[in-house]
Amino acid sequence: MIHDLFHPKRVAVIGASTKDLSIGNVIVKNLLHYNFQGEVYPINPKAPKIRGLKAYASILDCPTDVDLAHISIPSKFVPLAIEQCGQKGVKNIIINSAGFKEIGAGGEALQKLALETAKKNNIRLFGPNCQGIINTHPDYKAYCDFTFTYPKSGNISIVAQSGGVGAVLMQRFFDLDVGLRFYASNGNACDVSIPEIIEYYGEDEETKVIVLYVESFSDPSEFIEVAKKVAKKKPILAMRAGRTEEGAKAALSHTGGLVGSGLAIDLVFDKLGILAFSDEEEMCQSAIAFAMQKVPSGNRVGIITDTGGPAIIATDTLVQGGLIMPDLSKGAVSHLQTKLFPEASIANPIDVLATANATHYRAAMDTLLEEEQIDSIFINFVTPPFVDCQAVAREMVAVSNLGQKPIVCNLMTDRSQWGKTVEILNKGNIPCYDFPEGAAKALASLVKYGDILKREDSEIVDFNDLDKDACRQIIENAQENQKEILEAKDVYKILEAYRIPVAAWGIAENENELPQIANSVGYPLVLKADSVEAVHKSDQGGVKLNIQNEAELKIAAKEIKESIKAGDLKYFLQEFSPLGHEIIIGAKDSPGIGHVIMFGLGGIFVELLKDVSFGLSPLSKAEAENMTESLRSAQILKGYRGEKGGDLKGLVEIILRVSQLVSEHPEIEELDLNPIKTIPGKCLCVDARIKIGSKK
Amino acid sequence: MIHDLFHPKRVAVIGASTKDLSIGNVIVKNLLHYNFQGEVYPINPKAPKIRGLKAYASILDCPTDVDLAHISIPSKFVPLAIEQCGQKGVKNIIINSAGFKEIGAGGEALQKLALETAKKNNIRLFGPNCQGIINTHPDYKAYCDFTFTYPKSGNISIVAQSGGVGAVLMQRFFDLDVGLRFYASNGNACDVSIPEIIEYYGEDEETKVIVLYVESFSDPSEFIEVAKKVAKKKPILAMRAGRTEEGAKAALSHTGGLVGSGLAIDLVFDKLGILAFSDEEEMCQSAIAFAMQKVPSGNRVGIITDTGGPAIIATDTLVQGGLIMPDLSKGAVSHLQTKLFPEASIANPIDVLATANATHYRAAMDTLLEEEQIDSIFINFVTPPFVDCQAVAREMVAVSNLGQKPIVCNLMTDRSQWGKTVEILNKGNIPCYDFPEGAAKALASLVKYGDILKREDSEIVDFNDLDKDACRQIIENAQENQKEILEAKDVYKILEAYRIPVAAWGIAENENELPQIANSVGYPLVLKADSVEAVHKSDQGGVKLNIQNEAELKIAAKEIKESIKAGDLKYFLQEFSPLGHEIIIGAKDSPGIGHVIMFGLGGIFVELLKDVSFGLSPLSKAEAENMTESLRSAQILKGYRGEKGGDLKGLVEIILRVSQLVSEHPEIEELDLNPIKTIPGKCLCVDARIKIGSKK
Repeated sequence: MIHDLFHPKRVAVIGASTKDLSIGNVIVKNLLHYNFQGEVYPINPKAPKIRGLKAYASILDCPTDVDLAHISIPSKFVPLAIEQCGQKGVKNIIINSAGFKEIGAGGEALQKLALETAKKNNIRLFGPNCQGIINTHPDYKAYCDFTFTYPKSGNISIVAQSGGVGAVLMQRFFDLDVGLRFYASNGNACDVSIPEIIEYYGEDEETKVIVLYVESFSDPSEFIEVAKKVAKKKPILAMRAGRTEEGAKAALSHTGGLVGSGLAIDLVFDKLGILAFSDEEEMCQSAIAFAMQKVPSGNRVGIITDTGGPAIIATDTLVQGGLIMPDLSKGAVSHLQTKLFPEASIANPIDVLATANATHYRAAMDTLLEEEQIDSIFINFVTPPFVDCQAVAREMVAVSNLGQKPIVCNLMTDRSQWGKTVEILNKGNIPCYDFPEGAAKALASLVKYGDILKREDSEIVDFNDLDKDACRQIIENAQENQKEILEAKDVYKILEAYRIPVAAWGIAENENELPQIANSVGYPLVLKADSVEAVHKSDQGGVKLNIQNEAELKIAAKEIKESIKAGDLKYFLQEFSPLGHEIIIGAKDSPGIGHVIMFGLGGIFVELLKDVSFGLSPLSKAEAENMTESLRSAQILKGYRGEKGGDLKGLVEIILRVSQLVSEHPEIEELDLNPIKTIPGKCLCVDARIKIGSKK
Repeated sequence: MIHDLFHPKRVAVIGASTKDLSIGNVIVKNLLHYNFQGEVYPINPKAPKIRGLKAYASILDCPTDVDLAHISIPSKFVPLAIEQCGQKGVKNIIINSAGFKEIGAGGEALQKLALETAKKNNIRLFGPNCQGIINTHPDYKAYCDFTFTYPKSGNISIVAQSGGVGAVLMQRFFDLDVGLRFYASNGNACDVSIPEIIEYYGEDEETKVIVLYVESFSDPSEFIEVAKKVAKKKPILAMRAGRTEEGAKAALSHTGGLVGSGLAIDLVFDKLGILAFSDEEEMCQSAIAFAMQKVPSGNRVGIITDTGGPAIIATDTLVQGGLIMPDLSKGAVSHLQTKLFPEASIANPIDVLATANATHYRAAMDTLLEEEQIDSIFINFVTPPFVDCQAVAREMVAVSNLGQKPIVCNLMTDRSQWGKTVEILNKGNIPCYDFPEGAAKALASLVKYGDILKREDSEIVDFNDLDKDACRQIIENAQENQKEILEAKDVYKILEAYRIPVAAWGIAENENELPQIANSVGYPLVLKADSVEAVHKSDQGGVKLNIQNEAELKIAAKEIKESIKAGDLKYFLQEFSPLGHEIIIGAKDSPGIGHVIMFGLGGIFVELLKDVSFGLSPLSKAEAENMTESLRSAQILKGYRGEKGGDLKGLVEIILRVSQLVSEHPEIEELDLNPIKTIPGKCLCVDARIKIGSKK
């Protein structure tokens, strides 16, 4: 049905006004100006004509069926209008009017009523408080929107939660003379959702690349399910606003919706293979490359340039973007020595010189096509007034049309004087940029998406040596007793149920039980206060380390009892392992998204240097390994400068077991293993904390 | 004289050709097309006319004096042409021809001859192997260049070592409809230098901002001297290529000149108050803001927006750029409640809503002008088809003209449909951008330059308790004996001469002297092999720690003697200080620039985490303090989580003494104090190394 939304042939505009500066009037104007290939019915109870078109008093008076109705009347009249659309058999409505959920409780009720009315009448709602949709296809030219940019037809489809951002993206593509396929901005999104639109774009054959702007997700899991499938078929380029605390605050006040944890959304993008951007210009420029060129087989690029400085800047930016610039083969060098000017610089970059003509460019491009160690071609082309630039452009297009290796071009020209050259390149699908940085970043995006496509489907590790029932019972029991923070024994039982290695432990209900429990745990040991009342037991003198014998144990217990005046005081005894590195592994629920898993070395590394890595549950083995490898301090765990390292393999396994634990028990809101002690071949969790959410 | 170069009234073009696709012809074309306000004399021994102008067989035949001559004939004929220019009394020559220093030894000799010929004739040379200059002033319109962009008149002056980069920057300003004052690209720069041009731009009243592109400096000290003065008068925006290793390699092959250490150049930019960019687009957009608006008093910004999403993106980018967004005062909020739409969001950002008209914008702007805690105004203006946008633009210009607080505008529009609105803003000197990111980064640059202007002149610390003579003698002695690496005793004597605290030490010439020297140094001590032959003494078993008494000393000496089989073996004895943190302070000469001083914590911090800070000698106290403060691990030196810190004040003093040492003795190529041991109140250097350059 969403296909129909994007392919209307008879559009009614309820609220079409005679006033030029009104939304209803602008929509009629846009449909006419953009040369809509169907019928437009302005609905206005008073005016006989709107912008030269016959107006109808009610949608019921329209002479034919109506596919799509715009509604831009005050919000309180909207439910009635929807009812009338139902009577007329309309299947899709775009509600441009504001005054719904975004203004608070009253508006929210109205939005609910509108949605109920629509559902009753089998109508899909787009909006409310939104711009609308555009279909640029020559058979439709459906500009069902009140924006002002008239895009040409192409292969980029935009979906934007914010109309302002969507409009400026659309305008930028227009300024860059690049065509769009679809445009959609759905505002409050009470029915047709962004994931639904992404899914539709994914199925649309003419959409080569999807450009997405989001501030928040109402249903992250729907998004995740859709984006995962679509990102494997075609590139999704996404920008998420609210990256800073201040920005997130502004986003909150803008959408009035749930703002997901920024980190969690970044992890989702990464996990799903969505290319994330923090700059709109960069996103637009990358989209153009995707619309025009194929994805390179690898990250090895050859540069052709007719001017020195921009090649240096291109090199800097390409290398920073993860590309490498292999040397040319000896054969290539000697071949080019016969083809280029004697003063040309035959290396990578190949400097063909400013005086180079089409033959020289072609020789250089052909050479790079032949070179096995080159995957893509970057061309710096300043259009010298003393060179036949159109001929050079035609050669670029010819090489691009061979479809062997993608080409991007930093085209340094005056587009009015060299209009014909620009046209040849644009029609020939050579993505052209104003600066080497832009071209280099766009090519780096192509390479990055190539890497994503090559990523093996991350297989989630599924351990089968677990006691899930034991774990579930503890959690259910805690929920029934409204316990948020689990007691130590429950924490360790859960860890043991998931075979996470913990230091030997026991609980003494009172002082008398201490010696016996101590013997079963073994000396040396740690004695900890076990009390739900004592939250910061370490700061309160509730932890005694390295107890060697029963005498020391008794003194320690006495001291703890005096420090921690808690009614529920019990004693937690644990094997003391003084050696090795300290590791922290944590998990925190992001509702609808999953758990963010954190990994880091303890002490200064986490707290001072913020040297931590993150992953999103459920994790694959490769993802868990990447978490341990990507730390700046990773080398310490491998053994550094004669110091012993830790048990990397064991730590990866703990990360995976934690991931499975929280995935299978989403009731766990927070989990901290802090610290895990590790030496080569061994890991032991020596302190842990689990927080359970209330029953859902 | 360089003023004359930029203000020619009679230009001869030696090498003017009848062929359209030749440099000489293009220069004549450019002068005519750009409407040069003086005379053009094409010089061509054969053609009677070039592009309709009478041509002369020789410059000696020109009917009047000639101010400026272009030379674009093969390089071997250039010296003779210069000689003839001398006869004619020409004072400035632009050599466009290539084939000089950039092609190797033969070209270098030719370039030298050209320069000698010019000097003999009192001629200033611009180039060779260069584009030329442009003066956009209506009284001159001097397009003495073979590029193709015809800039309008304005206040931005460009100087670029690479013509390719210069041309693309000029083109971008043209595309953005922003005017230039001067353009210069001087290629091989054998005479007129980039610093000279910067100095001239600095003195030029109509130049408001200088845009600079460099790859290398032939004389960094000349640049430093000039840029230091100019950057205090007007902003210098600079981009340096060759940031990556690969880029530096490309730069080397491009300029054929000396590539300075990238780090050192970055430090120079920072020290001089030059705004450094790594992206040309960002540099251009910032230049526009400088050309149109004043520098804000501080970093506190107020946002006005008519659309939500772009305000969030603006917030993100502004905050990341170091700006803060204060809340509005209560008075401002209640005032705006009476002035804006009821649904408007009155906070910072102020969302005036898409339907806001000029009155609403004016009220919001006036409020931000009144707010004491706001220094600048950021406006997101999407031009709604239902709003009188020209009226809004006029209000922005009116507020900008008050000259109270700078304004930047993210103008989201179709520039063809809203041409009049764009024109009002452009003529009214409101810098407008396509995206919130661009506008935000430009405003952040204004703020950053404001901070630079507020920086107090860094006073170089000058200790007067030093024994400079002792230091000089050691260095001279080493140079005479062609010793690069100083002996331990000389190293410590130099450190002592500069009052850098070193652990007590002594040297035993042989085993027999050991006990006596050990008693004077005191136990526990460290015994080290002292031998120029043994470079890696630590790895070779030449260092023995924590020797407690004479018996241990003898064993250690014997072991060292067996491990280090060096003919010049002596024993270096040093106080052993096992406690505290280890610090590394280093200095490395960057010829012509100064010494790069490095500071970091030893061990994993420097080696694994690369947590080091840098400064450029000579250092001020503030700079040295900033070096210790800017480490991620700085907190460790202040005392972290109960662990003792170090002697921060003492370390700052050592940094300053090292800075003075290397500044006063530039013969020191490298100096490493590694490690310095520090506890609160005390620092001691326990190992050091000094490398001396050959006599200059």
